[in-house]
Amino acid sequence: MEKITSASNNKIKDLIKLRDDKKFQIVENLFVIEGLHMVNEAIKRNIIKTIFLEEKMLSKIYDINNFECILISENVSNKISSTKTSQGIFATCTLEKQEISFEKNILLLDQLQDPGNMGTLIRSAASFDFQTVIASNNSVNFYNPKVLRSTQGNLFSINLINDNLIKVISELKQSNYQIIGTVLNDETKFLKQIEFSKNQKYALIIGNEAKGISDELKPLIDINLNIEMSNEVESLNAAIAGSIIMYNIKK
Amino acid sequence: MEKITSASNNKIKDLIKLRDDKKFQIVENLFVIEGLHMVNEAIKRNIIKTIFLEEKMLSKIYDINNFECILISENVSNKISSTKTSQGIFATCTLEKQEISFEKNILLLDQLQDPGNMGTLIRSAASFDFQTVIASNNSVNFYNPKVLRSTQGNLFSINLINDNLIKVISELKQSNYQIIGTVLNDETKFLKQIEFSKNQKYALIIGNEAKGISDELKPLIDINLNIEMSNEVESLNAAIAGSIIMYNIKK
Repeated sequence: MEKITSASNNKIKDLIKLRDDKKFQIVENLFVIEGLHMVNEAIKRNIIKTIFLEEKMLSKIYDINNFECILISENVSNKISSTKTSQGIFATCTLEKQEISFEKNILLLDQLQDPGNMGTLIRSAASFDFQTVIASNNSVNFYNPKVLRSTQGNLFSINLINDNLIKVISELKQSNYQIIGTVLNDETKFLKQIEFSKNQKYALIIGNEAKGISDELKPLIDINLNIEMSNEVESLNAAIAGSIIMYNIKK
Repeated sequence: MEKITSASNNKIKDLIKLRDDKKFQIVENLFVIEGLHMVNEAIKRNIIKTIFLEEKMLSKIYDINNFECILISENVSNKISSTKTSQGIFATCTLEKQEISFEKNILLLDQLQDPGNMGTLIRSAASFDFQTVIASNNSVNFYNPKVLRSTQGNLFSINLINDNLIKVISELKQSNYQIIGTVLNDETKFLKQIEFSKNQKYALIIGNEAKGISDELKPLIDINLNIEMSNEVESLNAAIAGSIIMYNIKK
């Protein structure tokens, strides 16, 4: 098995570029995951291309011989890791073209910027049967290391799509989705006043952390809702607001 | 006005120590905040001791002459900042001894480790009228820069207390609180099955991100609940779970 001990090795340079650079991910049709739990989830989904690991991790992967593996030294591992304490295992995974599940509720992310919020929202979407997450092209990258980490491995069952949300919403309306937003206006209702129906499909828009939902999307919203909260607080965290609404739609 | 241009100035060294070191915070009875929004919130609460700011920020603070101010250069500002892009304004604030609000619902944090989760939970607690947050002594520090940042300034209205949770829960029971947990056992109910009463006070325990609620607290729980979710997902993020439950108790 090949062993790499220098972070200036070209394969490692490419791996780090692939970890950080969205365009390179698209060119190579690959993204990078980190940590044993994520690698095991990717193995289940059969999307692993190459595993990079320290020797101490060899025994942790069942049937290691089925995979293309490259051994790395601890200093290389620390260089690749996006965390302070590397577990010593990484993998490249194929980026599969994903399609909207038109049977299920959908989460739309409009210029979401914080990677922790995006990862947490993907994890909550998986928890509450929102099968597809569509982010505007100017949102944070789905395959950013911190996004991936915040999903806690719950991204592989979800369709992750980047697209123009105006176009997407128009398609969703043709498929009888109701579009839910959180814009405050005269018709905004409190969340607890809304009866969500099991027979209705919903697409929930979560807007940018600072600016909220874009002006051009506002006229496309069918129901705006407001989460009941103390007057002293301006707003909830975007991942919290999105998760509370998804839970209420699902339950 | 004094101006500091070197990060090795003793006042700056002390400020950085104060930012990071919980024991030093207790000794000095101070903590450090960062950013204009936080500083303005602290001004409203009248807890500012000293403002450290770049010259460009002087005009942003109304009545700047009422405060003890120290000018800092950009390089010093970048050294103090816990973020990549410093706003160029910081302050030391007095750590006031805080007491439990026995009139309101309470959030208990049992060995919570992630600063983003803690800050977000404090922000949600403020949103949903949980007036007191009590963390076990081995939880992440309330005054960690990332905790403070994640609160988005919504910490000053909340009583933040570190204490032994076994002791605290016994006091809360004497004050007729019901203790809510998320332990799975034969008596665990789904969240939507539970009718929370406006006439009942609740204390919600959120456990460690990996290990959940400590064994020694489990027998003290009156109601365990489970948030309805897809079987494919193991768990929700701790801040998400806590916020969904607090919202349901409040609404």
